[in-house]
Amino acid sequence: MLSVDLNCDLGESFGVYRVGNDKEIMKFVSSVNIACGFHAGDPTIMNQTVELACQNDVKIGAHPGYLDLTGFGRRNINLTPDEVYANVLYQIGALNAFVIAHGTSLHHVKPHGALYNMSAVNPHLAEAVAKAVYDFDPSLTLYGLANSELIKAGEKYSLKTAQEVFADRTYQADGTLTPRTESNALITDERQSINQTLQMVLDNQITCITGETIPIVADTICLHGDGEHALSFAQKIRTAFEKEGISIK
Amino acid sequence: MLSVDLNCDLGESFGVYRVGNDKEIMKFVSSVNIACGFHAGDPTIMNQTVELACQNDVKIGAHPGYLDLTGFGRRNINLTPDEVYANVLYQIGALNAFVIAHGTSLHHVKPHGALYNMSAVNPHLAEAVAKAVYDFDPSLTLYGLANSELIKAGEKYSLKTAQEVFADRTYQADGTLTPRTESNALITDERQSINQTLQMVLDNQITCITGETIPIVADTICLHGDGEHALSFAQKIRTAFEKEGISIK
Amino acid sequence: MLSVDLNCDLGESFGVYRVGNDKEIMKFVSSVNIACGFHAGDPTIMNQTVELACQNDVKIGAHPGYLDLTGFGRRNINLTPDEVYANVLYQIGALNAFVIAHGTSLHHVKPHGALYNMSAVNPHLAEAVAKAVYDFDPSLTLYGLANSELIKAGEKYSLKTAQEVFADRTYQADGTLTPRTESNALITDERQSINQTLQMVLDNQITCITGETIPIVADTICLHGDGEHALSFAQKIRTAFEKEGISIK
Amino acid sequence: MLSVDLNCDLGESFGVYRVGNDKEIMKFVSSVNIACGFHAGDPTIMNQTVELACQNDVKIGAHPGYLDLTGFGRRNINLTPDEVYANVLYQIGALNAFVIAHGTSLHHVKPHGALYNMSAVNPHLAEAVAKAVYDFDPSLTLYGLANSELIKAGEKYSLKTAQEVFADRTYQADGTLTPRTESNALITDERQSINQTLQMVLDNQITCITGETIPIVADTICLHGDGEHALSFAQKIRTAFEKEGISIK
Repeated sequence: MLSVDLNCDLGESFGVYRVGNDKEIMKFVSSVNIACGFHAGDPTIMNQTVELACQNDVKIGAHPGYLDLTGFGRRNINLTPDEVYANVLYQIGALNAFVIAHGTSLHHVKPHGALYNMSAVNPHLAEAVAKAVYDFDPSLTLYGLANSELIKAGEKYSLKTAQEVFADRTYQADGTLTPRTESNALITDERQSINQTLQMVLDNQITCITGETIPIVADTICLHGDGEHALSFAQKIRTAFEKEGISIK
Repeated sequence: MLSVDLNCDLGESFGVYRVGNDKEIMKFVSSVNIACGFHAGDPTIMNQTVELACQNDVKIGAHPGYLDLTGFGRRNINLTPDEVYANVLYQIGALNAFVIAHGTSLHHVKPHGALYNMSAVNPHLAEAVAKAVYDFDPSLTLYGLANSELIKAGEKYSLKTAQEVFADRTYQADGTLTPRTESNALITDERQSINQTLQMVLDNQITCITGETIPIVADTICLHGDGEHALSFAQKIRTAFEKEGISIK
Repeated sequence: MLSVDLNCDLGESFGVYRVGNDKEIMKFVSSVNIACGFHAGDPTIMNQTVELACQNDVKIGAHPGYLDLTGFGRRNINLTPDEVYANVLYQIGALNAFVIAHGTSLHHVKPHGALYNMSAVNPHLAEAVAKAVYDFDPSLTLYGLANSELIKAGEKYSLKTAQEVFADRTYQADGTLTPRTESNALITDERQSINQTLQMVLDNQITCITGETIPIVADTICLHGDGEHALSFAQKIRTAFEKEGISIK
Repeated sequence: MLSVDLNCDLGESFGVYRVGNDKEIMKFVSSVNIACGFHAGDPTIMNQTVELACQNDVKIGAHPGYLDLTGFGRRNINLTPDEVYANVLYQIGALNAFVIAHGTSLHHVKPHGALYNMSAVNPHLAEAVAKAVYDFDPSLTLYGLANSELIKAGEKYSLKTAQEVFADRTYQADGTLTPRTESNALITDERQSINQTLQMVLDNQITCITGETIPIVADTICLHGDGEHALSFAQKIRTAFEKEGISIK
């Protein structure tokens, strides 16, 4: 039976600041990526989020990012590969401490924001991330943008990889996401989002903005946890999957 | 054969800033406490310091502190026990990631600065620290001030504990350290420091500033890694121990 | 004609995180205290908040706090008076840069959270805050808890002071606020809040939780900018003042 | 009489960490650029450094950088021009508070590290820096790399500018510095450094690594405050200037 993973970035609150709808979105996904205190999250939030993930029986991943709380990890910082390696290793270990304390185990690592984007295109940074994951625990799964340098780096280290696709982003002919600076980067029509997602999961292909159809592997789909329509969209995509006989796991 | 542990706080550099004499002091001690990025240290420094510790075959401990780089973790911050628990757990996990990556294992945890002092006297904070250590790995050793609340909390959680004594600090009749604000808090005469240390290790007692002699357990002795006389004092105390047939381990 | 100042803490968002209802509450107050980036706020938020204050023609104050974003400046940090002096001076200057850039001028300084509480009771910290304000600009007004050490320190430096009272907090017989740890610390009944406020402004006295009536000076009243009833309470207290012929300025 | 300014980056210590030789180098320069707490420096250090500058009667400049203590402000962070504007304005104001408290006045602004380099080549960031300086105080002097976009942006805002040249760096035919990644980027021979500096100051030209001679304006020369030869080189360049009848001011 065909199956797919639904993942969501969570634990992005900080101190007194609250974002996201972690309790609700947790019910719709099969894996979560928890912020590790560099771009969002703090030790108390991380502890609570891991506990929530355990209660919902979802797979837990570390979601390391650049040390930039002001920019939420979305601004590129020009780190060397060695610095990226050490920063990612640190954050995986920090999150894993809460995972251990809650008696469960870490499943995957997915870089966040600018680190996600940079390790998708820069092979040196991609290798730094993959090596950090491998050195920490070679049985972890590395989540990365489908077709990206990060997936290649994970394969080089013989890590399990999960190629990630987006329901609400358009793709270019070379398999990369249309940059957010372009007007057609986002898909705002829910039906179109669902159709694109089904095409990726069922047919392993995607129709690009140029009209071409190219191959893509969709191991995991990223759901956004905030925004007013997040929960209703999560519900709709689950329903669409069930109708097509695709299991979420 | 009588033995004692010599420990030192290391890895306290940060970014471009360098403190301490890690490479040299590492040769004289049997265990090291490595800063975890909250009061000192950063991921790159932590990686390098763990590597250095492996090369010198010393036991590695996490040295968690308050999140206060400006104050080097020496200023008390009024955290709740739950916050202390989460902050300590986070830092142990972060350091342990580098320990794992270097193929070795973590030996102990010793809180730093104001967190060390607070968990010596406040049973709620002491318990928070001990619980974080226990929840991470109940086989770890908890280092704390001899006779302190932290040692009691460690025993409550059935952790191995190491009671720490200071060669260059005087003690009060209740077994606590004379506060640094007092003029007689520090022992500046090296011979006197060594004699006091031998008394603690050989006789399990200490002569207090009031003249009384009280019992003390000296499992581990703290050496300071910086200061111009640090290395020569480390050499002298090792020589004194060897002469008395006390092994360092 | 009797007049009183209504103030509110604003600009407490940070990065992508949003708190408070600055745009709306700004319409009801006569002065605002803007976070300076240590416990909340960042340069971009500060710029926007100062602009908003200019548009609403309210008096602008700096709202310095401890460097503790995780704790929102509410946790005491054991700084020396010299450190408090330098931290407050830094933050006043930083906020004032935006005030200058918007072509207006700074009116007051009010410390935040733990720094507010500590400088209310500790004369050394109170003096450090007052001296920072004086050294920056002796024409600024210092806002502090009515009857507190901070007010005394401000008077010592010949600063204008504004004694602050709270509509929704009860008072003890010594003139201090009932600690939040007590069950009767907060006044949840809006009518009672308004009556207490009118008593302070009109009669210069307050009925304490012990039943005694003691003198109090109410130069400025602190309104809370968040919470679901913040705006409606702000409206009600303005209406009550107008009815009594008290002007807000 | 021909004159030139000698400047140095100072106040780059942080917390317990000490770098540079501020007290000594201060005697050899005519202006100093003081770190503002984002890439180095903290409020206490800033206060002490401004005091030291007053004692030595040197011109005081703000030295704003990216918020990146781990990277000492040397790593580019992808800020928008609006973010750069707000970050620079914040830091100028913060430093100026100490300048005011010491009864003196701010003379100039010079961006640090990656912000210096980015605003030398990116006209949008250059304009953001220049606008922040202008909005704070249009009588300030803007220091920037000779021939750079930052100098052009300063002129656009009618700011006084100081074109900065380096004694120990080689130049390319387009007037830019040879990148540090090139083997011939640095001049290690002191005589050659001094000759190049005299050529720039006396003849307003520089011989590039390609052998061509191009025009350059040398309003101010950057001396490095750390390194073992910093003080002796500062002494030698002053002597060379005096011999040629060039005054330092």
